[in-house]
Amino acid sequence: MLGKLIDGKAIAEQINAETVAEIACLKEQYGLTPGLAVVLVGENPGSATYVSMKDKMCSRLGLHSERISFPASTSEGELLAILNDLNFKREIHGILVQSPLPPQISAEDIFASVDPSKDVDGFHPLNIGKLALGDPTGFAPCTPAGVHELLIRSGVKTDGAHVVVLGRSRIVGRPVSLILSQKAPDANATVTVCHSRSRNLAEICRSADILIAAIGVPHFVTADMVRDGAVVIDVGINRVEDKAVDKGYRLVGDVAFDAVAPKASLITPVPGGVGPMTIAMLMHNTVRAAQMRHGVA
Amino acid sequence: MLGKLIDGKAIAEQINAETVAEIACLKEQYGLTPGLAVVLVGENPGSATYVSMKDKMCSRLGLHSERISFPASTSEGELLAILNDLNFKREIHGILVQSPLPPQISAEDIFASVDPSKDVDGFHPLNIGKLALGDPTGFAPCTPAGVHELLIRSGVKTDGAHVVVLGRSRIVGRPVSLILSQKAPDANATVTVCHSRSRNLAEICRSADILIAAIGVPHFVTADMVRDGAVVIDVGINRVEDKAVDKGYRLVGDVAFDAVAPKASLITPVPGGVGPMTIAMLMHNTVRAAQMRHGVA
Repeated sequence: MLGKLIDGKAIAEQINAETVAEIACLKEQYGLTPGLAVVLVGENPGSATYVSMKDKMCSRLGLHSERISFPASTSEGELLAILNDLNFKREIHGILVQSPLPPQISAEDIFASVDPSKDVDGFHPLNIGKLALGDPTGFAPCTPAGVHELLIRSGVKTDGAHVVVLGRSRIVGRPVSLILSQKAPDANATVTVCHSRSRNLAEICRSADILIAAIGVPHFVTADMVRDGAVVIDVGINRVEDKAVDKGYRLVGDVAFDAVAPKASLITPVPGGVGPMTIAMLMHNTVRAAQMRHGVA
Repeated sequence: MLGKLIDGKAIAEQINAETVAEIACLKEQYGLTPGLAVVLVGENPGSATYVSMKDKMCSRLGLHSERISFPASTSEGELLAILNDLNFKREIHGILVQSPLPPQISAEDIFASVDPSKDVDGFHPLNIGKLALGDPTGFAPCTPAGVHELLIRSGVKTDGAHVVVLGRSRIVGRPVSLILSQKAPDANATVTVCHSRSRNLAEICRSADILIAAIGVPHFVTADMVRDGAVVIDVGINRVEDKAVDKGYRLVGDVAFDAVAPKASLITPVPGGVGPMTIAMLMHNTVRAAQMRHGVA
């Protein structure tokens, strides 16, 4: 079974190494250091952890980073004012607003207020539109872009294959379906988007050459839903209670890994599969934003 | 078989009647006449016909319309300058640039230069992004919006159903797949997007509850590709030679109608199915653009 695992950590490190090389080139040839601003509103502990990981990765790879933290009581207007500043700030090439946002702030309004050319999270409607149209000047959201890279770098051929995506979220399901159905050599898949309202879900999943689970339900995908030899990508990161460990919980994916892995030709573990790719793609997108702004790319 | 036809002409006339009522209301209550500008470049005879049909429909329904024609030699810069004027022109609420454009002009650049709030054709990447995100403030392209209305007004339930879309064009295939997979009562379908690279196409088509053909190949969909009782929507408008008629050609769809119709529970004819819906939705979008600009809606 070991040969069948997709090692997301190792692939993310490949991408990080490429990012380091790109940054060195930008510094040497153009005196340019790519910069990322991460905006955090409130005290969600998960968000704080993610933001710290992003900070650390920036300093490890050699990006400039700024963290801007606000209390949970911040108004939408205050946040928009800061985004406006960041949109104009020259040292900042990428802007990320950490989700979730407190209820008085509309995530839609915020995502749409980041300059699309600094939208390294790829959540602005214009960038989603470019993704839908196959326009390469936009940014793809980091997790789906990471899934795409995992497939490419694992030698999985998507051309003509049937990809079934479980979930239609703006963050994963929708954009990954757009990426993989684009008219492009590394895409060109036949893509089916399923969701909570879908009928005959197990049957549709069984018809997948590549099954991407992004539905946010622990162990939702069972062995009977997977065709022998399918490639299974598990985007889920769910906390389930586990008193045997210190933290009191462990992370599991949307796929019942132990039962599904023997049937799959390739499968991502959780953790260590898609997870590490998200930050790697964020760093990559930030460097690309800097390159595009300065006409280097 | 007669009861199974979806009468696109009749449904388009329902929508046109609603549009007339909306226009009357805008005129009476706000002294406002919705206005559409149609830009035509070159002398493509098909385009000239379409533009004339749009002009006539505007005057029939009571919209203000302007037709702006340019020679085929027009530069992209000249066209962009006119679009800029139209973007600011108060009497104009909707702008349509007729495709195809001559080779020296990038359609992508032009679509992206129409003010998204006047983009009644729904081709601006921002509007495609809003469609992907289920944001109702955008405009859906007219043909896919027309397909959606045909399904709704024919009583076809899409919720949980499997929709197979043949084709992934920016004009039809891609946006119709986005509309029908949205999280909304009249959508919520499981949508598979197929295209020229898809493997096992016949098998996938046979799994469709609703099959939408927008691939541009005469009679591509044969009876063996359709499940008994499926709903079949034919978006194709193909000219095939026919010496028996004066024009020398006749219009056929992407579906082999005579063979498929007996298997389908509902089917659109060509012509008289999807075709009349496109202009009806263009008129509808233009009125909506006027309503949105004036905060009436």
